[in-house]
Amino acid sequence: MSGSRPDGPGAWFRAEVVEQPVALRRLLDGADAVAAAGRAIRRLRPPFVRLVGHGSSDNAAVYGTYAFGLLAGVPAFRDSISLSVYYGADRGVDRSPVVALSQSGRTPDVVEYVDRARRRGALTIAVTNEPDSELASAAEVVLLLGAGAERSVAATKTYVNQLGALALIAAGTGDRAAEMCRDLWRTADLLAEAVERLEAPAEEAARALVFAGRLFAIGRGVEFASAREIALKLTETCRIAAEPLTTTDLSHGPIAALDALFPVWAVATRDPCLPTVLEAAARVRASGAALIASGDAAGEVEGAALRLAVPSSPTPLLAPLLSIVPGQLVAGSLAAARGLDPDHPAGLQKVTLAA
Amino acid sequence: MSGSRPDGPGAWFRAEVVEQPVALRRLLDGADAVAAAGRAIRRLRPPFVRLVGHGSSDNAAVYGTYAFGLLAGVPAFRDSISLSVYYGADRGVDRSPVVALSQSGRTPDVVEYVDRARRRGALTIAVTNEPDSELASAAEVVLLLGAGAERSVAATKTYVNQLGALALIAAGTGDRAAEMCRDLWRTADLLAEAVERLEAPAEEAARALVFAGRLFAIGRGVEFASAREIALKLTETCRIAAEPLTTTDLSHGPIAALDALFPVWAVATRDPCLPTVLEAAARVRASGAALIASGDAAGEVEGAALRLAVPSSPTPLLAPLLSIVPGQLVAGSLAAARGLDPDHPAGLQKVTLAA
Repeated sequence: MSGSRPDGPGAWFRAEVVEQPVALRRLLDGADAVAAAGRAIRRLRPPFVRLVGHGSSDNAAVYGTYAFGLLAGVPAFRDSISLSVYYGADRGVDRSPVVALSQSGRTPDVVEYVDRARRRGALTIAVTNEPDSELASAAEVVLLLGAGAERSVAATKTYVNQLGALALIAAGTGDRAAEMCRDLWRTADLLAEAVERLEAPAEEAARALVFAGRLFAIGRGVEFASAREIALKLTETCRIAAEPLTTTDLSHGPIAALDALFPVWAVATRDPCLPTVLEAAARVRASGAALIASGDAAGEVEGAALRLAVPSSPTPLLAPLLSIVPGQLVAGSLAAARGLDPDHPAGLQKVTLAA
Repeated sequence: MSGSRPDGPGAWFRAEVVEQPVALRRLLDGADAVAAAGRAIRRLRPPFVRLVGHGSSDNAAVYGTYAFGLLAGVPAFRDSISLSVYYGADRGVDRSPVVALSQSGRTPDVVEYVDRARRRGALTIAVTNEPDSELASAAEVVLLLGAGAERSVAATKTYVNQLGALALIAAGTGDRAAEMCRDLWRTADLLAEAVERLEAPAEEAARALVFAGRLFAIGRGVEFASAREIALKLTETCRIAAEPLTTTDLSHGPIAALDALFPVWAVATRDPCLPTVLEAAARVRASGAALIASGDAAGEVEGAALRLAVPSSPTPLLAPLLSIVPGQLVAGSLAAARGLDPDHPAGLQKVTLAA
């Protein structure tokens, strides 16, 4: 937590976005321990895996449900924290392992959830950036993100490392860790390329959004995690009312709210869900709303006013590690254009102690 | 689908909100079959139950996770539809029963999900308002909502009956159907009382919101379902950017976006999660945003600019059947004030065929 601030509002945020490839490689240096936790899950042959977290960590958990489903064939679900912590309904919790996500390791109800699960006999795995945190003490297995101190309140590199850690754990569970590790090293290089390539288009997108008050971010499948995290970055750093929706949920009601003042950000990635994204994007255009397209298939979104193309990942499951970059860069530029400080958004602390 | 329209825009929507107690009693007339489906789940002793649906049906599924957890001690999760339908990852799906929710019974990917699950040997239960629908044909067990034809595109009575059906199924699984049935009959009476009592305060709230462009709806535990459904009604019928958040997720970022032009609707119900709602409401007030409080504990939310108190339910788990009423009534009044038609929101059809 030492070190003086580089220069001015948002400087930590920008520096940490740029640092992401380096931070991811630090996680990969400790990949063996992460994959080993996955093998421990495999040995239990559990009926399902529970994922818990709030905010960006919950967005990473959305990614985790796909990582476990696709790499290990094991169902994984974001569990209700309140069901255990407030309602006391944790019967049978010992039968499924828990992966708890908190970069600070201090989110109170996540710590309490893990405490209860461990006391009842569940395998508890903490994924955190803080080795000395309450969460690290509470869990049986501690996996460190190794992202380095994150000084900006708005999380960036810890989020990408959470995705990397979940991919490694799930790959360990599916007995494919070596292959995943190789793909993640390659993704770290692509991440550096993405950050560099996207600086200018992100500036342009930020200029276009400078007076936007609201926005929907849409995605499907693994990329719903990216839609959620892009929306969260824009909300907390730029004070846009940015809501994430799956492409199908957009059509089940919210599309009625669109007009020319209500832009939609579509995460378009070459994977089996892409047709649903392209179909939703066409509906958005028909409503008169402006489209921002990101992802490695941004070029396939017809009628997009802005495109933020990212490099293709070695495997579709790792696309979200790259797809988040345009969201981070636009958030940083837009916050600057609005005179806001993403390092210290109003009313937020780095450690959220709210119940 | 017959019958002429009562009188003018939003007339079906209003008539269907008023009809809810009658519609719920129709569901309860067939309670035995619904509870029997729950007993069929019980006999399987499944590791967990899968819930699927989109839009309002997905909001009902959120409720379902609590109903199964609290009434049956069986974990229930909203499954990823795309994992099965688009990625083909449905290994082991036979081990857990599926409850699929769609009022029209025609949501394409929900039908396909059920098709696949049934072919693989899972117990499939459809909860729908349409006995002749594709979903009803696809599933092994069909439970009818009995809500009567819902003509407004924005769903109301089918949502309340979905909650009632899920409570009955979960109660059947937990071997407590008789008790639940009695509580639901009582809730139908309270629903009539709520609709009557809330007409005037809802009109007042709608007048206050007439120029609002964005809003957060917050809730926790079982009432997160209500926060989601209130936000969806306001978005689709009134074109507000209304985003639902858990009380904790509000503090993990989005609270930074609040100001005096960004009101927050808090669902405050007397249950174990109430302290988190009151704490979040205090943070909202500290940010300068206006608060709207609903639920049976609306009176306990300090500093609320508007209060929409509902009657207390016979048991906290049934509170969401009453908590949704203020959201529906405000949506109806606000749509009228804005010259919008909740019976036919722009760009929506009663049956959503989007992928």
